[in-house]
Amino acid sequence: MTDTLRIAVIGAGYWGPNLVRNFRASPHWQLTAICDLDGDRAQRLAGPGDAVRVTTSVGSLLAGGDVDAVAIATPAATHHDIALAALAAGKHVLVEKPLADTGERGRAMVRAAAESGLVLMTDHTYCYTPAVLKMRELIQGGELGDILFIDSVRINLGLVQPDVDVFWDLAPHDLSIIDFILPGGLDPVAVSALGADPLGAGKSCIGYLTLPLANGAIAHVHVNWLSPTKIRQMIVGGSRRTLVWDDLNPQQRLSVYDRGVDLGLQVLDGAERRQATVSYRLGDTWSPALPETEALAAMVTEFASAIQDRRAAGTDGGAGLRVLGILEAASRSLDAGGEAVPLAIDRVPALAGEAGHG
Amino acid sequence: MTDTLRIAVIGAGYWGPNLVRNFRASPHWQLTAICDLDGDRAQRLAGPGDAVRVTTSVGSLLAGGDVDAVAIATPAATHHDIALAALAAGKHVLVEKPLADTGERGRAMVRAAAESGLVLMTDHTYCYTPAVLKMRELIQGGELGDILFIDSVRINLGLVQPDVDVFWDLAPHDLSIIDFILPGGLDPVAVSALGADPLGAGKSCIGYLTLPLANGAIAHVHVNWLSPTKIRQMIVGGSRRTLVWDDLNPQQRLSVYDRGVDLGLQVLDGAERRQATVSYRLGDTWSPALPETEALAAMVTEFASAIQDRRAAGTDGGAGLRVLGILEAASRSLDAGGEAVPLAIDRVPALAGEAGHG
Amino acid sequence: MTDTLRIAVIGAGYWGPNLVRNFRASPHWQLTAICDLDGDRAQRLAGPGDAVRVTTSVGSLLAGGDVDAVAIATPAATHHDIALAALAAGKHVLVEKPLADTGERGRAMVRAAAESGLVLMTDHTYCYTPAVLKMRELIQGGELGDILFIDSVRINLGLVQPDVDVFWDLAPHDLSIIDFILPGGLDPVAVSALGADPLGAGKSCIGYLTLPLANGAIAHVHVNWLSPTKIRQMIVGGSRRTLVWDDLNPQQRLSVYDRGVDLGLQVLDGAERRQATVSYRLGDTWSPALPETEALAAMVTEFASAIQDRRAAGTDGGAGLRVLGILEAASRSLDAGGEAVPLAIDRVPALAGEAGHG
Amino acid sequence: MTDTLRIAVIGAGYWGPNLVRNFRASPHWQLTAICDLDGDRAQRLAGPGDAVRVTTSVGSLLAGGDVDAVAIATPAATHHDIALAALAAGKHVLVEKPLADTGERGRAMVRAAAESGLVLMTDHTYCYTPAVLKMRELIQGGELGDILFIDSVRINLGLVQPDVDVFWDLAPHDLSIIDFILPGGLDPVAVSALGADPLGAGKSCIGYLTLPLANGAIAHVHVNWLSPTKIRQMIVGGSRRTLVWDDLNPQQRLSVYDRGVDLGLQVLDGAERRQATVSYRLGDTWSPALPETEALAAMVTEFASAIQDRRAAGTDGGAGLRVLGILEAASRSLDAGGEAVPLAIDRVPALAGEAGHG
Repeated sequence: MTDTLRIAVIGAGYWGPNLVRNFRASPHWQLTAICDLDGDRAQRLAGPGDAVRVTTSVGSLLAGGDVDAVAIATPAATHHDIALAALAAGKHVLVEKPLADTGERGRAMVRAAAESGLVLMTDHTYCYTPAVLKMRELIQGGELGDILFIDSVRINLGLVQPDVDVFWDLAPHDLSIIDFILPGGLDPVAVSALGADPLGAGKSCIGYLTLPLANGAIAHVHVNWLSPTKIRQMIVGGSRRTLVWDDLNPQQRLSVYDRGVDLGLQVLDGAERRQATVSYRLGDTWSPALPETEALAAMVTEFASAIQDRRAAGTDGGAGLRVLGILEAASRSLDAGGEAVPLAIDRVPALAGEAGHG
Repeated sequence: MTDTLRIAVIGAGYWGPNLVRNFRASPHWQLTAICDLDGDRAQRLAGPGDAVRVTTSVGSLLAGGDVDAVAIATPAATHHDIALAALAAGKHVLVEKPLADTGERGRAMVRAAAESGLVLMTDHTYCYTPAVLKMRELIQGGELGDILFIDSVRINLGLVQPDVDVFWDLAPHDLSIIDFILPGGLDPVAVSALGADPLGAGKSCIGYLTLPLANGAIAHVHVNWLSPTKIRQMIVGGSRRTLVWDDLNPQQRLSVYDRGVDLGLQVLDGAERRQATVSYRLGDTWSPALPETEALAAMVTEFASAIQDRRAAGTDGGAGLRVLGILEAASRSLDAGGEAVPLAIDRVPALAGEAGHG
Repeated sequence: MTDTLRIAVIGAGYWGPNLVRNFRASPHWQLTAICDLDGDRAQRLAGPGDAVRVTTSVGSLLAGGDVDAVAIATPAATHHDIALAALAAGKHVLVEKPLADTGERGRAMVRAAAESGLVLMTDHTYCYTPAVLKMRELIQGGELGDILFIDSVRINLGLVQPDVDVFWDLAPHDLSIIDFILPGGLDPVAVSALGADPLGAGKSCIGYLTLPLANGAIAHVHVNWLSPTKIRQMIVGGSRRTLVWDDLNPQQRLSVYDRGVDLGLQVLDGAERRQATVSYRLGDTWSPALPETEALAAMVTEFASAIQDRRAAGTDGGAGLRVLGILEAASRSLDAGGEAVPLAIDRVPALAGEAGHG
Repeated sequence: MTDTLRIAVIGAGYWGPNLVRNFRASPHWQLTAICDLDGDRAQRLAGPGDAVRVTTSVGSLLAGGDVDAVAIATPAATHHDIALAALAAGKHVLVEKPLADTGERGRAMVRAAAESGLVLMTDHTYCYTPAVLKMRELIQGGELGDILFIDSVRINLGLVQPDVDVFWDLAPHDLSIIDFILPGGLDPVAVSALGADPLGAGKSCIGYLTLPLANGAIAHVHVNWLSPTKIRQMIVGGSRRTLVWDDLNPQQRLSVYDRGVDLGLQVLDGAERRQATVSYRLGDTWSPALPETEALAAMVTEFASAIQDRRAAGTDGGAGLRVLGILEAASRSLDAGGEAVPLAIDRVPALAGEAGHG
C-alpha cells in the first residue's frame, strides 16, 4: 500500500459531491473513480479531463486495479449489497449513514468486514466536528469522571420529512455522537420511545427517547420538528465534572463545569441508620478553545489513518450498527406505547482480534 | 359575609410566615388567628399585642366565631384531617401543596368541599406569577390555537431531598402550571415516568415524565437535580402560535412565536394517493409586557374572590387532585420500568353544580 | 432603455467576483463585460465562451455600445477617475465603498453625476441586509418617533489592518447604516473621535466616535479590534419606541421595545416653579420576522430600480460622501486630541432637481 | 484598642439602616451609637432597649468615650464638616459616597486623615461584590498582563434624577470599580465627556466618558438612562488575557479569555523597512467560581481590618477623591463641548508614610 490511498466515490447525488470535494482536498487520498447509475451526473462530478475514471457499474468499478477503498453515498437500501461486493473485492469501505436499512443487514456488513480484515467505517460526520472531538477527548481522558447522565435536545422548526419520522431523521445525530464520546460506545440496557403526531402528519413529529445505561446512568434525547426556537444542546453529567455543549453559541460551544453533587454515607444513631450526606461543589467553569476545522476533512483523514494503522475507525461499522439497533428498538417501543425494549448490542469485532471501538 | 374576610393560618413553620405576611398585606383579608402545635412559634409569628388570636388546637381555632376561612400550611399528612374538620365547621379552605399525601384522601377533601358548597383551593403559588397568568390568558383566549405539545424543563444543581424523589420535589410546579394554563386542566391519557439515580442516593435524581394528551398532543417534563446549568423553560406549541417561557430571562420571559408548520392534504394521481403538504409560517415574535406583582399576593386575592363570587378558585381542589393523581401514576410507572400507566382523572365538581376548573 | 440593463464590472479582484455573481443571477441585469488590468484574471471571471466581453482598458470598455452601467470594484484611489470617465460616457455608476479616497474627489463625483442626470450609487452592502432594511422601514415609517440616540458597538478580535486604523476599517459600516436608516441621512453637528493604540501598532486599534445630532440627539460608535468577545449591536432610541439590533442573535436580530421615558411639565408652587415630570412606559416587545435574502442581490436590484425610476439610489453618491466626510472629520478630531470638529455636510443633489436621499 | 471596634452610625435615612444592619451582624464591630438630627428616626433604628446610645448632636456623639469610628451616611454637603470633626476627635471615618460635595473639600478630608494617622474610607460598596473582588485579585496578580483598555457600559431604563445628571448618578460606580481594580488606582491623563439630553430634561440623560490612561491605554464609560435593554458590562483588555464582567449573567458573571493580539516587529528588505507582525491567540475561556457573599458585609470587615492593620482601606479617601476629581473634570469637559480636560490626580497619602492605595 502506498502512502496515498486511492478512493472511489459511489453515488453522485446529494452527499457524494461533499465526499468528492474532501477526498480531493486531502493529502491522504487520491480520487481515482466515480460511479453512479447516471453516467452524466458522475461525469459532471468528475469534471473535465480523464484523471478520474467514470463508470455506471459497481462491478466494473471494483474490477479495476486503481482503487484501495470505496465511499458509498447511495440510498440506504443499497448499502449492504455494494459494501459486501467491495469487501469481497478487498476494498476498505466508508458508508454514508445509516449503515444499512436494517440491523440484520448492517450486522452482515460488520461481520464481513471483520472476517476480511478490512476497515468498515460509518460516516457519522458530526462526530468529527471540533466540539465533539474535544468532548470525546475530555470524557475518555477521565475529566468528567463516571458518566451519570446525558441529556440531548435537538429541536427546531424542521422539515417534516416524507419518508421518516422525527426519530429516524434527527436522533441518529444524537445517538452517533453519544456513541462516539462514551468509552465503549453507547450500550443501553433498554430503549423507551414516546412520540406525538399532533398535526396528523402520519408519523411522529415530536419524539422522546430514554435509554437506561449501565450503573444507573441514563441518556435521554428530545427531537422535535415543531419547535419555533432552535435548540441544539447536550449535557453530559459526570461524577467529577459536567459538560454542556451548546452548538448554537459559537462564542462558547463547550463549557465544563467543576460543579456537582457528592454523596457520602453518614452513620446515624450508633450505626443503626445510615444516611446519605450530600455535599455540593461549586467550582470554576472552563471553556476549551476549539480549532476551526471542517468535520468532513477530519473524517476522511480518520478513514485513511484507520486503514494505514490497521485499526478500527473512530466511527466504525459497529458504531453504525449500534445506532441502527437503537433506532429499530425505538420504533418497536413506539409501536408498543413506549414500553421499554431490552437491548443487547451485538458485539461483532470490527477487525478480527481487535476491540470494536477505538 | 362582610367585604373583608377573616382568615386563620394553621402552621407557623416554613411556609406559614409567607401566608401571614400576604394575608396581612391584603385589603381583602383580616388575619384573625394563628394556630401551631408550638404555641411559642405561633406567638412569635402573631407578634406583640393581642389583635391576632393564638392557639395550639385546631378544634379551639374552629370553635371560635372569628374565622371565615383557614389556610393550612402543615405537613402533607395532616392536610386531610384538618381540611375536613374546617369544612365541617363551615370554613373555606386553602391548602399548601400537595393537596394531600394520597390521592384517595385528596379525593375525599374535594368531595367534602363540593358537598358543603365551600371553596377548597390549592396553593399552587407559581400559577399566580405574572408570566403564568399571562400564559393562561393567551392560551385560554385562543391565541395559540389548539395545543399540540408542551415541553417543560426544570433543571439545576438542586438540593437532593431526604424524603422525596425529584419527581415529587420539582414536577408539581410544572404539572400545576400546565394544569392551570390548559383549558379544562391537565387531563393526560396516561403517564410514563423514567428516572435515574446514578449517584446511588436511593431515589430518582433525574426524571422524565411523558403525558400523552387527547387528540395526539403530548406533554413532557424533565426534572433534574444534577444539572450544573439552571434551565427553567416551557414550550407550549399550538396550531396557530407557539409560546416559550424562559423564567431565567427577566428581560424577556415570554415569547410568542407566530411560526409553525401547517399541514394540508393534496390529491395526487387522480385521488389515488393523498399526501400531506407541509407549509411553514415564519412570522413575527412578540413578547408581552408583564406587571411586577407578587405571586402570593395574587393568590390570596384569588382565594377571596372565589369565596365572594361563590365559584371555584383558579387552582381549586380539583387542580391539586389532578397533580396528585399524575404524581402517583408516575410513581407506579417508575416502579414498572416506565410502563405507561393509564389515567382517568376523577372529575369531582369543586362546587356543587359548577365546572371544576375556572 | 430595455427592461434588462447591461452591466460591466470593472475590477476582478476581491469584491468583483461577488458583484459578477449577483449581476449574473439578477433578472434585472445582463452582464456584458468585465474589465481588469490583469486580462487573465478578467477572463477567468468571465468564464468560457464569449458571452461576456473581456478587456483590460476602461477606455475601450466605455467605447463599446454594450453597456448601460458600470460597477467599479477597483482600489479606492482609482474610483474618481474611472467614475468620471464612465459618467462622461453616459453610464450609470456603482462604486464599491469608500466612494473615493478623499472627500473632495467624492464631491466631484457626486457633482458630475448630478449634472449628467445619471445614477451614482455607493455599494454600502450592509444596508441591504433584511435587518437594516426593516430598521429603515420602521424608523422612516415613524414607528420609533423622533430619534433620540443611536449607540453602535462593533467589536471583536479583529485583524489589525496594515493600511487603515480601526475607524476607517470598521466605522464605515456603522456610519453607512445610520445614514441609511435616518430620514434625511446622517447629518451630525460635529464629530469627536478618541482612539487608543495600547499595543503600539502605529494606529488606533480602539475607537470611539461621538456625533451630536440636531435637536439634542446623539450618535456614538464604538469600534475595537482587541475585544475577545464579538459584539455587533445597535440601539436606536426614539421618543415612541426603541429598537435594538443584535446582529449575532439570528433567532431575534431585531427587537422593538415599547418602553421609554416620557417627560412632561408640572407647575409647582403656583406657577412659580416648573419641574419636569417623568413617567415610564413598560410595554410589549416585538421582533419582526425577517426574510432570508442576500444583501448583494437586493443591492443590485436597487441599482436597477433607481436607474429605471430615474431616482437617487437608497445609498447614493451623497451617502458615500457623507460617510467619507465624517471619517475625514474623525481623523482631524483624533489628531486634535478628540476636539469636536464641526461638520456641515455638503448637500449636492444626486440627480438634478431631486432630493439627495431616497 | 480591643479586638472588637466600636462604631457609631451618623445619619438614619436611606443608607444608614443598611450600615446599621451590617455593623450589627459583623463579628468585628460593636454598634454603640446612632446619631441623626431627627431623634425619633434614630431611636427607631436603634430599636428597643438602651444598648445603643441615641443622639441628635454630632458634638455630643464624639464627646462620648464609647466610639472608635464613625460611619457617615448624611447628605454629601455635610460630609466634610462631620468627617473633620470626627478625625479631630481621633475617630476613624467611613464616608458614604461621594466622599464630599467638592474635590477641594474632599482633599481637605484626605489631608486631615493623613495628618492624624487615622483611617478615612469611602464606602464604594460595589467594589466589595465577589465579582469585583475577584477582578481585582486577577488584575493585580498579573493574570491579565498590562491593562490596554477598559470599556464599561451601564445602561437601562433608569430613573431620571432630579438633582444630578447621568454622569454623577451612574458613572461613580464604574469609576470607583475601575479605580479599585487597577494597580495604583485610576489615574487618567485627561477626561472627555459628551452627553445628550434629547428629551429636554435639563441635564444629560446619556453620557460618554473617555479617559486616556498612561502608556496609550484608554478607559471608556457609557451611562444611559434611556436604554430599554439593561446592560451592565465591563471589558478589561490586557496584554496577556482579557476579562469580561457581565453582571446580569448570574451563571457566568466573569469570563477570562486567553485570547488576544500580539504585536512583534519584523525586519523587511534588509532592515530597510520594519513592519509590525500581528499574531492572534485563541485560547481557552475560564470563568472563576464566585462566593455568595454580601458586599456590605465585606466592606465593614475591610474597614475594621484597615484600622487594626494600620493601613489604608481598599477604597480609601484617596479613591473617593479620585472619583470626585474625574467627575468634576467630566462636568467641565461637558460644558466645554467635550474638550479633553487634563487631570493630575492629587496624591495625598492616606496614612502618613504609606502608599495611598492598598
